Amino acid sequence: MSGMELQGLSLIGAQRGAPGGAEFTAFDPVSAEDLPLTFHSASVADAQRATALASTAAPVLAALDGRQRGAFLSSIAAHLESGRAEFEHWVPLETGLPSARASGELSRTIAQLRLFAGWVEEGSWVDARIEHGDPTRTPLARPDLRSMLRALGPVVVFGASNFPLAFSVAGGDSASAWAAGCPVIVKAHPAHPASSERAGLAIRAAIKQCGLPEGTFSLLFDASQAIGSALLRDSQVRAVAFTGSRRGGRALLDIAAARPDPIPVYAEMGSVNPVFVMPQALAARGDAIAAQLHASATQGVGQFCTNPGVMVVPHGVVGDAWVVKLAGLFAGTPVGSMLTRPIAESYLEGIQRLASSAGVRCLHVKAASATGGVPSLFEVDSDLFLSDPTLHEEVFGPCSLIVRSQDLTDSLDIARSLPGQLTATVIADSGDYTASSVLLEVLQEKAGRVLMNGVPTGVEVSHAMVHGGPWPAATAPLTGSVGTAAMLRFCRRVCWQDVPDALLPAALQESNPAELLRLVDGQWRR
Amino acid sequence: MSGMELQGLSLIGAQRGAPGGAEFTAFDPVSAEDLPLTFHSASVADAQRATALASTAAPVLAALDGRQRGAFLSSIAAHLESGRAEFEHWVPLETGLPSARASGELSRTIAQLRLFAGWVEEGSWVDARIEHGDPTRTPLARPDLRSMLRALGPVVVFGASNFPLAFSVAGGDSASAWAAGCPVIVKAHPAHPASSERAGLAIRAAIKQCGLPEGTFSLLFDASQAIGSALLRDSQVRAVAFTGSRRGGRALLDIAAARPDPIPVYAEMGSVNPVFVMPQALAARGDAIAAQLHASATQGVGQFCTNPGVMVVPHGVVGDAWVVKLAGLFAGTPVGSMLTRPIAESYLEGIQRLASSAGVRCLHVKAASATGGVPSLFEVDSDLFLSDPTLHEEVFGPCSLIVRSQDLTDSLDIARSLPGQLTATVIADSGDYTASSVLLEVLQEKAGRVLMNGVPTGVEVSHAMVHGGPWPAATAPLTGSVGTAAMLRFCRRVCWQDVPDALLPAALQESNPAELLRLVDGQWRR
Repeated sequence: MSGMELQGLSLIGAQRGAPGGAEFTAFDPVSAEDLPLTFHSASVADAQRATALASTAAPVLAALDGRQRGAFLSSIAAHLESGRAEFEHWVPLETGLPSARASGELSRTIAQLRLFAGWVEEGSWVDARIEHGDPTRTPLARPDLRSMLRALGPVVVFGASNFPLAFSVAGGDSASAWAAGCPVIVKAHPAHPASSERAGLAIRAAIKQCGLPEGTFSLLFDASQAIGSALLRDSQVRAVAFTGSRRGGRALLDIAAARPDPIPVYAEMGSVNPVFVMPQALAARGDAIAAQLHASATQGVGQFCTNPGVMVVPHGVVGDAWVVKLAGLFAGTPVGSMLTRPIAESYLEGIQRLASSAGVRCLHVKAASATGGVPSLFEVDSDLFLSDPTLHEEVFGPCSLIVRSQDLTDSLDIARSLPGQLTATVIADSGDYTASSVLLEVLQEKAGRVLMNGVPTGVEVSHAMVHGGPWPAATAPLTGSVGTAAMLRFCRRVCWQDVPDALLPAALQESNPAELLRLVDGQWRR
Repeated sequence: MSGMELQGLSLIGAQRGAPGGAEFTAFDPVSAEDLPLTFHSASVADAQRATALASTAAPVLAALDGRQRGAFLSSIAAHLESGRAEFEHWVPLETGLPSARASGELSRTIAQLRLFAGWVEEGSWVDARIEHGDPTRTPLARPDLRSMLRALGPVVVFGASNFPLAFSVAGGDSASAWAAGCPVIVKAHPAHPASSERAGLAIRAAIKQCGLPEGTFSLLFDASQAIGSALLRDSQVRAVAFTGSRRGGRALLDIAAARPDPIPVYAEMGSVNPVFVMPQALAARGDAIAAQLHASATQGVGQFCTNPGVMVVPHGVVGDAWVVKLAGLFAGTPVGSMLTRPIAESYLEGIQRLASSAGVRCLHVKAASATGGVPSLFEVDSDLFLSDPTLHEEVFGPCSLIVRSQDLTDSLDIARSLPGQLTATVIADSGDYTASSVLLEVLQEKAGRVLMNGVPTGVEVSHAMVHGGPWPAATAPLTGSVGTAAMLRFCRRVCWQDVPDALLPAALQESNPAELLRLVDGQWRR
């Protein structure tokens, strides 16, 4: 027995949740058939046990040094790698994603954990600041002050539907919370429970290997929303991370804001990710741009938060021909299976809404399908787009709306009319740079990430990445949910005043044992 | 005409608000008489004009380089200094604070602006992160990614009642927002309108001197809560800063959370700031400790957010004698005038609540006074303190509650029972260090700042300070409201992907023109 057998039961610290809750099955969205594995919803008592264990584990994790935290993250990575064959079995079955995607996403998830491991092992991320005291200062002696970032406490992570590994149980939210020193309780997404349980077992093995407290991690299954809601209201939970719909994120935010002690909800809720195609670029290399945007808009059946849902294209004959070209590419795209039935239904509603909007032209909409992601392309004039905010809303799936712009002024108005975005892209040649510069000025106020001559899909996991943005793309634009900057979500700053060196955290001790980069008396130095 | 004449009208950018709104007067809390200066409440139209101007100014301020932002902050400092005689006239009249305090607080406010000026002139605070692309990477080319912190947009600041300069119009919240590159709209506290207007005129002079857009700053007077509420709901406002009561902070938070686009409210709401006096220290230097804590608890008529409202003192004869000693010091303290009538009334309610709590012993409570801050000392056994959360609530004023602890376990239970705190202090000699170490482990989870052998009053303005803490001390424990770390409240992170060097902000350009410390391909370097 490897200890990695799936049982369909929640993981509450080192224990299993009891059977008896509402059952649900893993489901194959391609065949539309149940898979032979039943999952049992956790009870509220399970959730309470998970938060109590997390609360006990919290100070232990907060006190781990960078090397210990890094070892834990690396151990999770290694245990995920050991399960590669199982993930490559379960992920395609549960999600309909191709096995190359499952394999690539697993590699991404592992690389993500290793990035965080290296970052916390180096350790300077705690932003240590030291000011030596001055007993001779008048009228008052200056105290010795030392502050740094510290773990916030138990974090609840909601697994995302569209990334069964990278934004799920051992994904970026969990990795950044553990890196910051926080215990994690994951509410598994019911669309991929087997993949979730398998990832959970890898994490549990890492906890055992590293000798960490069992409350470092729990995984809760639930067919309903009761457990998520109970976790949000639990007084021991200090923050929440979520990737999903705006409606879902808003609901979580409202629950958290109504607590006697409000807590932050870091929700990434998607956006239309506008792409502005500039005239010179369009004239010089329209075919290549069409191919690039078509691939970005339809890959993975369009099920990415950064999918380009709005393309702003110049008015006129060159633009007209380009739109026909792009429509042809959409027409030649096979219908893919969507991740879940609710996503497919919601997508169908979205394209029907666009198709029935007066003034919106259907360039390519195949016959509707109950579960398939039919690639869909629409077109609208800028004046209508500017006057109808419903056209600014994301249709999650392989759907794009082309907005025909009269000129730069029109494009600027379109940019200004948009709500907060995860990304905004400008496709430009050097002859477009002056206009692009003006456009970027507006777009950088609207989006967490601005791109030139690339596509918004493909979110690099790194220190410099921002995957977030102003409302409604996300709830807190100081950070995003991808890369090491995401750790700030799960930290608090604490200051120690005149505390003897031996009682200080190592990161703040005078000898700087880990050789961190620190701000000492106003100067950054190691 | 110096342009610095007080008119009792709001400052809406470069204009004055119109008279006609509800009038209120500056008020002398010592004589309980109106001062000969009438103020006119702003209209909702004034507030809308202020936010529209701020919205226009926002991209201009966001684009200023560090040198320009520093020059503005330094210019405000210089214009405040020019008004020193007027502040020394108005602040004591409006607040009852002694003139030495007014002068000291002005110096603190000026030093605070200069600290931020130096910080943004150096510029590395933007946390620039650069990762060079790699076109040869497979399966996908690695993009060039560059991210940094950027200004969030218009910020509303509510002036505090208890610091007419340092936490008011040109105080720490405003300074940190301007430093981050945000326009500021201040809702003046009605308890010190003349000081507020004079500070506003200094800021306006600095805006003119530096050639900044008028929307960089507006100041709104209001006798009611209507303008504050309108500002919170205004779609152009991106964040709110507040220092005051828990009830006030909670009300703002609830309004902001209910917006269609929720925004953060950074509220600092005070706490009881527990001080744990350890046995060896008590035995060795009880008299000195009593003098130190008495001074901290009663200075400024106890009207500090960091006032030590709970003192945990060992059970037994040494502790008994110390308590008598401290009560004697309280008895010898003159009654001071409180800042405002509502504060005095609330203080009176607070001490009456303690005095009437079964099991709470009154050690020194003078006859009640409608406007005076009567120094008040109470005592309670730990079991009662642990069982009654109302005893954990702040009584804003010169009031302390002594909790008698049986032993270290008891002190730890007391520490664990407390809600979030701005500060927590341990008074210890070397013989107490082992116990203190255990206690600090608990306290650093509870407070934004932990101290040894000092007093919590006196908040240093610096890079390492934290003036904040877990709920209900504050709303967002990642930062505080004092010192340069406070700037994070008003920032968002933005990433530029594959954007040509010439179109990037200077802080991210390859040549690093300002020689910032940046994270380049995972290494910190200039």
